[in-house]
Amino acid sequence: MSKLKVNKGIKQPEVVNKNAAKKFVGLKKSKLSANDYFKGIEEGNISILSRAITIVESNLDKDKKLANEIVKLCLPKSGNSVRIGITGVPGVGKSTFIESFGKIITNKNLKLAVLAVDPSSNKSKGSILGDKTRMELLSQDKMAFIRPSPSAGSLGGVAQKSAETIILCEAAGFDYILIETVGVGQSEVLVHSMVDFFLLLMLAGAGDELQGIKRGIMEMADMIAITKADGENIKKAKLAKSEYKNALHLYPANESGYFPKVKICSSLENSGIEDIYKEINEYIDYTKGNKYFYKKRTAQNKQKMYNTINERIITKFYSDKNTKSKIKDLEKMVEKGEISPFEVAEHLHL
Amino acid sequence: MSKLKVNKGIKQPEVVNKNAAKKFVGLKKSKLSANDYFKGIEEGNISILSRAITIVESNLDKDKKLANEIVKLCLPKSGNSVRIGITGVPGVGKSTFIESFGKIITNKNLKLAVLAVDPSSNKSKGSILGDKTRMELLSQDKMAFIRPSPSAGSLGGVAQKSAETIILCEAAGFDYILIETVGVGQSEVLVHSMVDFFLLLMLAGAGDELQGIKRGIMEMADMIAITKADGENIKKAKLAKSEYKNALHLYPANESGYFPKVKICSSLENSGIEDIYKEINEYIDYTKGNKYFYKKRTAQNKQKMYNTINERIITKFYSDKNTKSKIKDLEKMVEKGEISPFEVAEHLHL
Repeated sequence: MSKLKVNKGIKQPEVVNKNAAKKFVGLKKSKLSANDYFKGIEEGNISILSRAITIVESNLDKDKKLANEIVKLCLPKSGNSVRIGITGVPGVGKSTFIESFGKIITNKNLKLAVLAVDPSSNKSKGSILGDKTRMELLSQDKMAFIRPSPSAGSLGGVAQKSAETIILCEAAGFDYILIETVGVGQSEVLVHSMVDFFLLLMLAGAGDELQGIKRGIMEMADMIAITKADGENIKKAKLAKSEYKNALHLYPANESGYFPKVKICSSLENSGIEDIYKEINEYIDYTKGNKYFYKKRTAQNKQKMYNTINERIITKFYSDKNTKSKIKDLEKMVEKGEISPFEVAEHLHL
Repeated sequence: MSKLKVNKGIKQPEVVNKNAAKKFVGLKKSKLSANDYFKGIEEGNISILSRAITIVESNLDKDKKLANEIVKLCLPKSGNSVRIGITGVPGVGKSTFIESFGKIITNKNLKLAVLAVDPSSNKSKGSILGDKTRMELLSQDKMAFIRPSPSAGSLGGVAQKSAETIILCEAAGFDYILIETVGVGQSEVLVHSMVDFFLLLMLAGAGDELQGIKRGIMEMADMIAITKADGENIKKAKLAKSEYKNALHLYPANESGYFPKVKICSSLENSGIEDIYKEINEYIDYTKGNKYFYKKRTAQNKQKMYNTINERIITKFYSDKNTKSKIKDLEKMVEKGEISPFEVAEHLHL
């Protein structure tokens, strides 16, 4: 922790502040004001934080206003965590990695939040196993807070909600925020746009590594960690490591000036994980030193600005009563095949 | 083809109509009118079709107007293809599958278009290998048209562009349109929303199949095909087949009333592919029989309607000069940290 200096000058973490919790017991669920939420969050009250995140994730109009107020209050207290994105194909062992990695953090008496981003969970609303059962140790750890993926909406919506959830967690004093993304695709781009460090987990010996993984995802990675490097797998993992190292040399240098590392690790044997933790913190120090860290956050803020604007434009458009009824009519015409879906915009003078 | 009856009453396919091509030779690239494009497309002129798709994919204001006109002209000639979405993790062998599957179609003297949807190609703009070199046989096949993924934009934008590209290909007389999606994530949801049949390719013996693949993707599949079922792999493939069959039984019945099948195939040995082709056509017949086919297309049209509206709202908002300059100023304030990205919407009265 000597090198990292996260949350310098911020009060000691208190994940569950029981007095704070008591204070809110008397209040009905619906009665908390934005300021109540903010106070609860600031005091590290996890139950209040959870409820505030639920409000941020809500699509109800009344919740949106409250969510904006809470976020606004939390903003001055935010920005002090290390935001790490973690991705990898299904089966790579993300959950066990996050368990081992997370325990290193909480064992240092640092607070860890684990968020999931999965905009594809349209139909099933969540992965096959609940997020909490996937991470048994962390879910019982008082220094850790695990928040499952919000139910899906538009990608811009998910991006905005996740960005706001990060703000709330930071105001609650979390030192590290892990943002896990499921699968390989658009969600990676999304998560990459909101983190300081992007970690790609990969399996050794899957055969097609270099062909199979999309170049775009590899280019985004600040580090590749080869998982399950234990037992008979170690040899394969080491081979894969040198292959990935060579592959990374084909890409232009990272904008940060830092050269992405390739690591091997085993969550089973708990090997290599501490090394990854150290390397990430070295990256943070390095990029804070050359100011890249701040430049990137500024660029991300600009992106957030546009995401927010776009979300609001659309929300505003559909909230108009006349527009609503006109669209209902047009929808019926599309249903009957009277007009094409592409012509609708013209009828709305768009 | 006796059962399928696609494009009934539509003139015989002519993928490369040389006379049509000549007709347009004298015209400068910029001089084609919407009607010129439509005529060329209708005559099956691939070069005109390609150019029209480029216009549909363009983000330039002047192209958008032209694109809308072309699509409008093509609409009455559209709707007659079988639209098949194909997905699977990297390394599953999508390209070789599409080659074998595609050859079955073109060998029947039917026209095939292969489109790719990959909204995550933000940074690298395309996959590691060009789409054409991935499918050598098909790219030399006169009955086939391969169109690489458009460069990325918003997901809604990609959805709209792909939907419009389908319209153009159908107006050009294509019998089958394969829409390939890369990776596991949001792009699957997108592609699922624009096809009649959704095929999930999977590898046998990857170990974590049932845990690893996201339930949402499996639920969307109308068929699971286990690839690379050749040589020593056959046993594993058969085992995986029965596992998936059991897994599928855990899900509620498909809305179509059709029970998703699990198949094994080998692109290398060209086995099982014809069977998959037949099964897909049986599905199309079955769902046309019980009207689900049409109900689904109607629902998809409604979704397209909303995608189009949302795209237009945002485009319109940013095209206003005053708004543009205001946003520039706000962007600078965000850059300097003077306001938060979330507050910007308020300044724009959103």
